[in-house]
Amino acid sequence: MFNTLNGQWCNLLRVRRAGILSRHRHPAPVHGYVIKGSWRYLEHDWVARAGDYVFEPPGETHTLTVDAGVEEMITFFHISGCMYYVDEEGNHTGFEDVFTKIDMCRKHYIDIGLGDAYVDQFVR
Amino acid sequence: MFNTLNGQWCNLLRVRRAGILSRHRHPAPVHGYVIKGSWRYLEHDWVARAGDYVFEPPGETHTLTVDAGVEEMITFFHISGCMYYVDEEGNHTGFEDVFTKIDMCRKHYIDIGLGDAYVDQFVR
Repeated sequence: MFNTLNGQWCNLLRVRRAGILSRHRHPAPVHGYVIKGSWRYLEHDWVARAGDYVFEPPGETHTLTVDAGVEEMITFFHISGCMYYVDEEGNHTGFEDVFTKIDMCRKHYIDIGLGDAYVDQFVR
Repeated sequence: MFNTLNGQWCNLLRVRRAGILSRHRHPAPVHGYVIKGSWRYLEHDWVARAGDYVFEPPGETHTLTVDAGVEEMITFFHISGCMYYVDEEGNHTGFEDVFTKIDMCRKHYIDIGLGDAYVDQFVR
């Protein structure tokens, strides 16, 4: 779901192998519900497990990691603002918001043959 | 999670018998993720099933119903604004917002012996 009126989107994040999601900062609230598997942030000592709710306050900077042994993790995220990617020193390395997400999905749906208008049904 | 800064809350709605949630109107967006079971709105012809995402735009008025045969339904909701309860003619019958929800939870936690401060950990 792409909310272009207040810069917000919902997505399922699915990870099927051990790995890391680049370090990023959130300027606005994020809510998550873990559907399957488990994951954690390198910056925190808790583990998010299936059935857990996760709140990420504005200002949070973190690196999501899925540990070896987790076959698959799926989390429903409700994200506002953007993902501002940073390296260990806080230097800018990338940026995503509802508009770059729409662009990414539009390209994906074109690539898999569903066409350039397919994503529009998810945009408000 | 009770967000008192922009009038928003997250909750799990669990229903363990067939029944109806009183008709209500939403002045602000609602996002849902169905974890278990299924349910529908009397005002729509689709059914929300486990794994489905549901978006309720501002202005939606509906009556949630869980049909006989569904043992249990659990849905994760991210709700903004309020629940403005109305009857079939649109007359006001009740009201809930993040503050009435906090009051309700505070009373519940007192009743079950966890004390009047227990809910505070969920308030931002």
